[in-house]
This record gives sequence, C-alpha cells and structure tokens, in this order.
Amino acid sequence: EDWRSRNKVQIFQYVVLKWALALLIGLATGLVGFFNNLAVENIAGFKLLLTSNFMLKHRYHEAFVVYAGCNLILAAATAALCAYVAPAAAGSGIPEVKAYLNGVDAHSILAPSTLFVKIFGSIGGVAAGLMVGKEGPMVHTGSCIASFLGQGGSRRYHLTWKWLRYFKNDRDRRDLITCGAAAGVAAAFRAPVGGVLFALEEVASWWRSALLWRTFFTTAVVAVVLRGLIGFCRSGRCGLFGQGGLIMFDLSATVATYGTPDLVAVVVIGAIGGLLGSFYNFSVDKILRNYSVINERGAPFKILLTVTISLLTSCCSYGLPWLAKCTPCPPGSQCPTIGRSGNFKSFQCPPNHYNDLASLFLNTNDDAIRNLFSGGTEDEFYISSLLIFFAASFSLGIVTYGIAIPSGLFIPVIMAGASYGRLLGTLLGPLSKLDKGLFSLLGAASFLGGTMRMTVSVCVILLELTNDLLMLPLVMLVLLVSKTVADCFNKGIYDQIVKMKGFPYLECHPAPYMRNLDAGDAVSGPLITLAGVEKVANIVYTLKLTGHNGFPVIDEPPFSEEPGLCGLVLRSHLLVLLKGKQFTKERVSTGAGHVLQRFGAFDFAKAGSGKGVQLEDLDIDDEEMEMFVDLHPITNRSPYTVVESMPLSKAAVLFRDLGLRHLCVVPKTPGRHPIVGILTRHDFMPEHILGLFPHLKHRRPHMSV
Amino acid sequence: EDWRSRNKVQIFQYVVLKWALALLIGLATGLVGFFNNLAVENIAGFKLLLTSNFMLKHRYHEAFVVYAGCNLILAAATAALCAYVAPAAAGSGIPEVKAYLNGVDAHSILAPSTLFVKIFGSIGGVAAGLMVGKEGPMVHTGSCIASFLGQGGSRRYHLTWKWLRYFKNDRDRRDLITCGAAAGVAAAFRAPVGGVLFALEEVASWWRSALLWRTFFTTAVVAVVLRGLIGFCRSGRCGLFGQGGLIMFDLSATVATYGTPDLVAVVVIGAIGGLLGSFYNFSVDKILRNYSVINERGAPFKILLTVTISLLTSCCSYGLPWLAKCTPCPPGSQCPTIGRSGNFKSFQCPPNHYNDLASLFLNTNDDAIRNLFSGGTEDEFYISSLLIFFAASFSLGIVTYGIAIPSGLFIPVIMAGASYGRLLGTLLGPLSKLDKGLFSLLGAASFLGGTMRMTVSVCVILLELTNDLLMLPLVMLVLLVSKTVADCFNKGIYDQIVKMKGFPYLECHPAPYMRNLDAGDAVSGPLITLAGVEKVANIVYTLKLTGHNGFPVIDEPPFSEEPGLCGLVLRSHLLVLLKGKQFTKERVSTGAGHVLQRFGAFDFAKAGSGKGVQLEDLDIDDEEMEMFVDLHPITNRSPYTVVESMPLSKAAVLFRDLGLRHLCVVPKTPGRHPIVGILTRHDFMPEHILGLFPHLKHRRPHMSV
Repeated sequence: EDWRSRNKVQIFQYVVLKWALALLIGLATGLVGFFNNLAVENIAGFKLLLTSNFMLKHRYHEAFVVYAGCNLILAAATAALCAYVAPAAAGSGIPEVKAYLNGVDAHSILAPSTLFVKIFGSIGGVAAGLMVGKEGPMVHTGSCIASFLGQGGSRRYHLTWKWLRYFKNDRDRRDLITCGAAAGVAAAFRAPVGGVLFALEEVASWWRSALLWRTFFTTAVVAVVLRGLIGFCRSGRCGLFGQGGLIMFDLSATVATYGTPDLVAVVVIGAIGGLLGSFYNFSVDKILRNYSVINERGAPFKILLTVTISLLTSCCSYGLPWLAKCTPCPPGSQCPTIGRSGNFKSFQCPPNHYNDLASLFLNTNDDAIRNLFSGGTEDEFYISSLLIFFAASFSLGIVTYGIAIPSGLFIPVIMAGASYGRLLGTLLGPLSKLDKGLFSLLGAASFLGGTMRMTVSVCVILLELTNDLLMLPLVMLVLLVSKTVADCFNKGIYDQIVKMKGFPYLECHPAPYMRNLDAGDAVSGPLITLAGVEKVANIVYTLKLTGHNGFPVIDEPPFSEEPGLCGLVLRSHLLVLLKGKQFTKERVSTGAGHVLQRFGAFDFAKAGSGKGVQLEDLDIDDEEMEMFVDLHPITNRSPYTVVESMPLSKAAVLFRDLGLRHLCVVPKTPGRHPIVGILTRHDFMPEHILGLFPHLKHRRPHMSV
Repeated sequence: EDWRSRNKVQIFQYVVLKWALALLIGLATGLVGFFNNLAVENIAGFKLLLTSNFMLKHRYHEAFVVYAGCNLILAAATAALCAYVAPAAAGSGIPEVKAYLNGVDAHSILAPSTLFVKIFGSIGGVAAGLMVGKEGPMVHTGSCIASFLGQGGSRRYHLTWKWLRYFKNDRDRRDLITCGAAAGVAAAFRAPVGGVLFALEEVASWWRSALLWRTFFTTAVVAVVLRGLIGFCRSGRCGLFGQGGLIMFDLSATVATYGTPDLVAVVVIGAIGGLLGSFYNFSVDKILRNYSVINERGAPFKILLTVTISLLTSCCSYGLPWLAKCTPCPPGSQCPTIGRSGNFKSFQCPPNHYNDLASLFLNTNDDAIRNLFSGGTEDEFYISSLLIFFAASFSLGIVTYGIAIPSGLFIPVIMAGASYGRLLGTLLGPLSKLDKGLFSLLGAASFLGGTMRMTVSVCVILLELTNDLLMLPLVMLVLLVSKTVADCFNKGIYDQIVKMKGFPYLECHPAPYMRNLDAGDAVSGPLITLAGVEKVANIVYTLKLTGHNGFPVIDEPPFSEEPGLCGLVLRSHLLVLLKGKQFTKERVSTGAGHVLQRFGAFDFAKAGSGKGVQLEDLDIDDEEMEMFVDLHPITNRSPYTVVESMPLSKAAVLFRDLGLRHLCVVPKTPGRHPIVGILTRHDFMPEHILGLFPHLKHRRPHMSV
C-alpha cells in the first residue's frame, strides 16, 4: 500500500539500500565467519599444544587435567553466557530462522544480544572440544546480522536511519534474513552456491526469482572476503590459524571411475546411512525432551548439564585413544606430526609410531574430518579405531545437542558419517575399489541426507568442499537413497526441532484431514469486532481484553444501509492511531485527510521487534475515553476472504501461499452477520484443529507424498 | 479433490509412477542428447573433412561449392521439415516451455510431432553450420519427452496406461515438464546442478521444495547416462565423435589469483557485455518482427529465408578467413591440425602455418568455443581476427534466430561473448594478467548475463563446464554487472519472445497501474451464468455461444431462498456430463449419487492436449434437449473469490500465486446479483486493461524493482 505514495527518489533510495544491505550483510558475515575460525583455531590450538607438551614429557595425568580443565572452563563460560544473557542463542538456530521466515515472529530470535552470544558462544563451544559445529550458529549469526542491519541497529543506540524505514515490513525483512542465512552457510563452508541452495531448500518458505539473485550476490561477497582474509593468513600472520580452519579438501587426486559393484556399495552406504540418520533424529528428539526438563529448572542447571557433557567428552577424547595400538609410521610422510594438527598424532606412542585414534580425537573437529576424508591413505586407520570413533562421535553428537550452548548439527553428523563411511568402505574393500577418502565423503553424505533430508544443497556444499564435480553422480545417488530410506521413519531434524519448540509452523501442504473440514469449522473463540467509527473506550477495552492482532471492522447504520464488512484493522495501527489522539466528540466519519494531517505514511510501518507502540505507552484521560475515532483510514478495506463452506485445506493453501496473517471467513448465505470469524496461523495448527475435532485424531492419516 | 477418494494402493501407484517417470525422462533425455551430439559430430565432421580435402588439393572453388552445398541442403531440409510438419518446433522453445509452465495451454507446444521435428531439426540446423545452438531445443525436447511420457504417449498409438490417469491434472503435468526442462539443460551442457537451477530461475513459475529433489534426480540420471555413453565412445566406436562434442573445458591449469586491476578489467567486461547484450536483445526483437511478416506468407517463404541465411553463413565462414594472415605454428604442438577439429586450421596457408580465423569459422560451434576458451594460448589469435569473428558471430546470431528451424540462443551468445572477451582481454593486456581463456569465459558470461538475464544458473553452468570453482567470484561479478547494466535498457530475451509471441504470461509482480484499479473494473464482457439444475438446451447453447472455460452456477429458488453463488463449473466437465446423458424430465436435484453411478472419479480428470470431449462429439436429440441436468455434483462449490472493491493488484497476486484459471468477483454489498463476473488470465494482461482504461497508458509507469 505504501508503494502508491512513493516517488522516484524514494524508489531509488530503496533499490540502492537493498543492494547496499546485501553487500553489508555479506561483508559482515564473511568477517564474523573468519573471526570465528581464527579464534577457534587459536584457542583450541593453544589448548592442544599445552596438552601435547605434557604428553611428550610423559606427564599423562597432568596432560589430562590441563586438557579437561581448559574444556571445562570454556564450556562453563559459554553456558553461563548463554543462560544469563541470551537463552535464545542455544542450539543450532536454523529451526528458529526457518520458523521466522515462515512468518513466526518469536521474541528475541534475532535480537542483538542473541547475535553477541551466538558469535562468542559458538567460538567457546567449538574451542571447548565439544561435539558441536559452527554451521548452524553461523546461519543464525548471518540472519541476526541481517536483521540488525535492516533495523539500523538497536533503537537503544540511536542508530535508526531514515532510509531504513523502507524495510519496516515483513517482506523486505524476510528477504534480508534469507540473504543472511545463505551468507552464513557460505561463510561456514566457503560454499557460495551451496549457501544459496541451502536458503532455498531448507530455510525459506517463500521464494522469488529476484531473491535468488540477491542471495547469490551476498554469498559471492562472503566468498571474496574469506578468500582475501585467508590469503592474508597464509603468510603466517594469524598465529595458530594453520590450514585455514575452514574445511576444504581436495580429492581430485583420487580416481573417479566406477563400475556396477561400486554403485552397489554406494547404495548400501546410502541405505544404512538413512537408517542411522533417522535413528539419530529419533534419539536427538528423545534427548531434547529430557534436557528441556533440566534446562527449565534454571541457569545453574543449564551450566551443570553443560559441564557434565564437557567432562564426558574430555574423558572420551583423552581416554579412548589408549585403546588403540601404536602403528609404525608409513614411509615418506612427516610422522608423527609434532604440534597441533596433522594426520599422525604421537600420543603415548614411541618415536616413529602414531596413534590413529588420537589423530581423530585430539584434534579440532575440522582437522578430524580432514583426516577422515584424506585420500590415498588406505591403511591409516584400523577398523577397530574407526568403530570406536564412530560410536563415540555418534553418541556424543546426540547427547551434546540440546545443552545450553550454540551448537551446530552439521559437523557432528559429518564426523559420524565420515567415520561410518570409512569403516564401511574398509569392510566393503573386496567389493569396491573406490578410495577410502571417497567412501568417507559418501558416508558423510548419507548421514546428512538421513538427518537433514536436504539433497541438492548438501550435494552442492560437498562438491564445493571437495572441488571435484566428477563424483557428483555418486553423491547424488547416496543422498537420494538415504533420504528415501530415512523419510520412511520420521521427519528431518530441523522440522522435528521446529515442532518440539512449539513454533506455529505452516507446512507447505495442508494436512489430509483438513479436506474434510470447512473453513467455518476452524473458527473458534468469541468474535470481537469494531465499528467503523468507534468509541475510544471500546477500543482500549478491546485491546486490553484480548491479545488479537487483527480486528474486523463492521460498518453499521448510519454509515451504511445494513451491517457490512468494512475491512480489517491491525492492533499496531490502532495503537499508533490512539497515540495520535485525533479524536472527535461526535460519532462522525472524519475521512482520510484528517488522519494524514497528523501521520506520515511510515508511522504505520511495521516496527522492529519490541519497538512498536505498546498499550502501556498510551495515556488517555477519561474525557478522551468518551470520544470517537474514525477507523476507516487505517482499515485494510479489501482483506482476503473465504466463504465459510470452503474446505479448510483450500483456505490453508490460500493462507500459506500468500503469506497471510489474518484470513476473514464470511458467511455463505446473505442476511447474517457479515463476518463469521478470522483465521490466524494458530487456527491451522494440528493441535488446535484436533482439539476441536478429536475424532479426526483416530483416523489414520494419509501417506504424505 | 481427487485425493479424498484415493486409497493406499492408489497413492503407492502414484508415488512409484512419479519417480519412475522422472527416471524415464532422465534416461530418454540423456539418450536423445547423446544421439543429437553423435549425429551432429558425424554429419558436420564428414562435411568439414570433405571440404578440407578439396582445400588440401588447392581446389578452393570446389571446396566452397561442397561446403555451401552441404550446408544448403541440410538447412533447406530442416526448414521444410519444420515448416510442413511442426511449425511450433521453430525457434528456441524455451519461451514456449516457460509460457506452458506459467499456465498457458498453447496448442501443439508439446505435441509428439513437435518433439520429432525438434530432435531432427536441431541436428540438421547445427550440422548445417548455422549460428544456432542445441541448448534451447534440448530444453524443449526434454519437456516434450516429459509430456509424451506423462500422457502415456499419444492416444493414437493406444499407449494410454491406467496408472497414468493420476497425471491428468495441471500440477503433476507441470512438475513433469519442469523435470524435462532441467534434464534438457543437463543434457546440453552436462551440467546437472545448472539444469536444476535453470529450471528454477528461468523456466518454472511455481516451485516447491519437493520438486527440487525430483528435478535433481532427473538431471543426475542424465549425467550418468551421458557419462556412460561418452565413456563408450572414447574407445573410438562412434565414428567422428571425437572429443565428445559436448563442450567441456578444463581451465584448472590456468592461474586463478587476481588483484584489483583484474577486478577493474572484469567490471569493464561486464559493463560493455551488458550493453552489447541488451543491444543484441533489441536487434533480435526487431529482426523477429520483420521475419514474422515473411514467415506468415507460407512454408515456401520460410524455406527461402532459411536458404538465404544459410548461404550468407557459408559465405562468411568460407570467405572471411581469407582476410587473415597465415601465422607460423607455435613450437611443440600439433600444427596445423589435419582433419576435422583442433586449434590450428591450415586453410590456404603453407605447411607449418595456420589460419587463426579458419580455426574459428571452419569448425563446429562447440569446437570454435573450445578454441576460444583454451588457456595458455596467449598469442594464438590476432586482434583483427578476433574482431572479425566477433562482428560476424554477433550479426549472424541476430539474423539467424527467427528462421524456421529449431535454434538455440545459448551457443551464438557464448560464441559472440567469448570472442568479445578474448578481444577485450587482449586489449586490456597491460592492465590485467589474467589468462586469455579466462577472459574469453568472462566475456561469454557477460553476454549471457546481458541477454538471458539469468545469474545463478548461468554461473553454475559455466562452472560445471569448466570444472573450476575457484573462479566463481569473478564469474559472479561479471554476471551481476552485465545483468544490472542490461536491465536498464530492456527485458531478458526469453521474456521478449514470450511477449512477442502473444502468450498471456502472468508476471510475478502485478503492474503498478493495477493498484489504482478495482477487481470489478477489469471484469468485461457479458456474464453468462448457469442455474444449479439447468435445461440441457441452455447448456449446449451456452457452450456453442462462447469459448469460456468456466461458468458460474447460480442457485435460484426453489433450490435456495434467494439467488446465491453455488460455485463454478468447467466447460470440460459439462461436456463429460452431457456425454453421459444422465438427464431428468423434471427440474429436480438428483444429487451426487446419481452421477457417481455413471462416472468414475477419473472421468473428469483433465485430458491431454486434444484428447478431451469436444462439443462436436455430443449427439443429443431434441427430446433430450428439453430435459434437465443437475450441475451440483460437478460444480466446484468453493471457488476462490474476491470482492469487487479489492485492488486489482491484490487480485492478481492471488491469481498468480495460487495458479488459478478462474477467479470469481463477488459484489461488495449484499442484495445484488450474487456474482459480478469472472476474471481469467486474459483479464490481467496489460493489453486488456489498457484497452479498457486508455488513460493509464500515458502515465509513466513506476520503475520496477
């Protein structure tokens, strides 16, 4: 509606700003992504160096104390930060962003405090050696940055800029946050195309072609920033930064020819990976429900839980490598590697021997994955070591998600999947001659397909990580098989978490039972309407009484011949209007001119989170309460409507596809009250509908397609 | 609506069939793509061998006669095939597929005869040395294959299979054809991810996440098929097939480090490429309008035009290389190359010399592009040669599109762009040290961005062609610059062609002037309604009188208290109902049971093109004409409706986003006739609206964003 009043200069400002914001989001996300890696590599590097120095002196107990102590302190600090400053920063963040882009305005999801905790909490959690990744948090961070920039910072810091008023609406905000999410993936994996596809496949609920272009621009900026900074670090000016920290492999040396037996092996990997992936989802769901009981008891319990998991992880990482035999070093490579990273960790072994389990456990997660993916290293790992590492990473991944720290799911899943793939590749050795590193990659793909249920974006991300397009068909195949198998059991992990968190997420397809209900059936609660010219006291009373965000406005005589639906008015607009105090003594229609004298077009724009006028801000005296105000100028005169007899499924499609927040239900036959009710997002939720019609619960739902 | 009546077995059949069809589409498109390349390489190879044999004997006139004669015969045969068998097969085909997926059911776009002509016409046109590509035709071919398979072949051949009835609706058909279009790109460029993105960015109007997955599966199948067949041909069993014919380059040897001067050079390339690209679009548009006058005069004129262009092309290809100087061969490479392809053509030159222009002109288009893209060949081409080739390919590309043969636009644009890029790279030599092959790639990208206005898919296609992800940021940058520049002047070439062909294409965003109109304003023509229980004669008369595809059904007394909108009935459903002849003597409501006795749920499913019941198929005698039929069972009782006072732009969003074909406009105030009119696709077209309200034409439209 604002568009009509915009002139050319304003449109130019808008277009320039849109692209400038996309650029800024890319720059900022790229910088944060680089800073995150730099910090993790240096903190974790320092910790591992300290530990290995003690071990070289055979002071094993002190080494463990130092190692576990560092982990503990980092984990506890992170949990404290998260619990006290921004509880919304815990977890992956992808489900929250997904819900936001679906239209759920949950409080504090994208607040500046969440951004702060997410950045530093993610560094702390990953540096503490916990089985968590930085990808989910990076997506959330990118989205928070986008939201922060789009709002012109927080109002507290007086950063609101006049141009930014154009972005005070749902659509432009969602567009920015989609760009931010894509930038996050691009920064985490250095995968610009993968980031765009991830935003498209997993995060966004509505998509336009123009958005594809802008998202792509943002991720390209991220890629350029990262490339420049890593080039700067190659010269050794970044401390322990080492190989870049951002996992990036080069498998192009390995062979990419394959025959039928190889394809069979790939299908087997995909099928088992799908099974294990859906089991992973199932377990995470169970664990999360138990943890939420603990976490609800308060911040100290959150910290206690995190400390427990940290201790458990330290014990596993330090204890399990003792089970592995020492292996003589292969000739011709630097072995054992002294220092922080590298394929061959010495651990307790004599000179010229290495401990293969320690190479996986006593490393940063990125380096462990790089070791698993490395090609041309057929015999580096024992089957027993791979089995132990797989079991440990699988279980630790499950128990770690849900503690009160920012924790991504990609890396744990990739680690478990890569060790599983390498294990299966070793077992399938007689069948297939593919490289073990490639098996590892396929295993990781099968786990990602089995848990996240994304195919195209995971495939492209893996391709961008490995920089080899020739294995595309194999990765595609394994993803298709694992997703198909896993879809038979449960939903993707992000969908599970969205549901568990209770976000009113609108699915793409309406549930089958909605076909048997009418739109009128789903309307519930008392209908509250306002008159076209309403008494101020009535409005205030209505706003106090209910938390509804939209009210139908009914024109009644003398303003119309018979009662008719005038339109829909929003709570936020009512509050702005009341604050303006343009009241009249008599019940007269003042018209739009009267209101436009007092307000600009942007006064009614949607404010940022927590920035709008609140009911408590109003200061209306008793005399004013008895006066009248004309609601016509702020009423949406043509809301989308459906007839009460329309199947609920059709109404749901309308609601979802157009991204509505309120849908008016009008009577089928004339002569009745002009509106039956209003459908909102919550009215389409299964809990609501099955609560109204419990008999539908017992009918077996149709298979989804 | 069918879903409610489906049981588990039917759903299982549906899901299995959906995936089986995706597999089949992938297989068939891959095979056709390979066959296409094989045929082109062998025919063109034979032609070029013959010509160069004459040239080696210095019989230059005979060489020209053979060369031009072969081209002429191939071109004339193709034009004849196209003009007499399937005129719809001329041109790229991408605009047609795009329009179909937008909801335009244009006749014969996807007919089997079109498929046949498209395959063989594309081979003939490319082999004839015309400046056309096989990419657009491959997309059309893939879509035709999808349509053909989805309909179970043509009814003529009695191939209709019972299971396929599930696909007799718009949505499933569109899904299949989207898969087919993606498979076409994947087959043309061996770019599976690029194919998916192309379908998403350029072709499809509606997109769902599930479709992403299925499309990806189809393109993966194409990639596997092509890989297998090319592996088979490597062993030399495919005649003159040579290097694979499918352009695929490997630039990974060239350096991919760049600094600020390189970026400046890239921006310059992008900006000029955008200018030239928009000029290309402008010229193609002008030429097409002139050609359409010629082509409308009949098949012989079509053939004559094609023959003229073929002669012109032959003269250019054979004549222009005489302008080039002979260059001594660089040491260490096979030069001049004897035979069909290769970097160094001997032409008229003495031994150990080559003619650089002949290397570009007297080759298949794929080989010319490969020569231009080749890295590490700094001084292979003179500036003058590049200039001549650029001018020739640019102008030939413009004059060739629009003649009556299947002609893709990608290859001409890539050729002109690659020579432009190499030319500019040579000129910018002092500024930038990037490889000339890379410049060539960037030039091609800038032209593609400037004409097609696709960014993400072109970028990914180019990456998949060159198999080097490290130059991603440069390609992105050049695409962004060229698209931005070109968007200032005109629309993308496919959008232009869609508009010129007069398809009623629904844009994603409603035009700005629609905000100032109401839905009721756009309703035009006499409103024709049917009663809930209607006389047969009336229905037949209505169907004869108008070509409308939907009619509102009004319930009148005695079936309701006062006239009310019952719903919407489709022409095709009326025809099926009339054919069933379940008439009654009296005006009574018979109910749904009566109709379901006679018809199955699938009798009303949407038939394939040209397969539904026609008005002429009805055989109703005079007695039956006076009887009645109950329309309630076949009426859609809850069509989407809008109030007449809703802004037309909002109605357009509803219409477009939900993919409707009819939208009922109801009165704002009660007590009037229950329906104001019906909006269809044509009512949203600018021509229609500006015809009704000519004053809107003179107002300057808002800038689009």
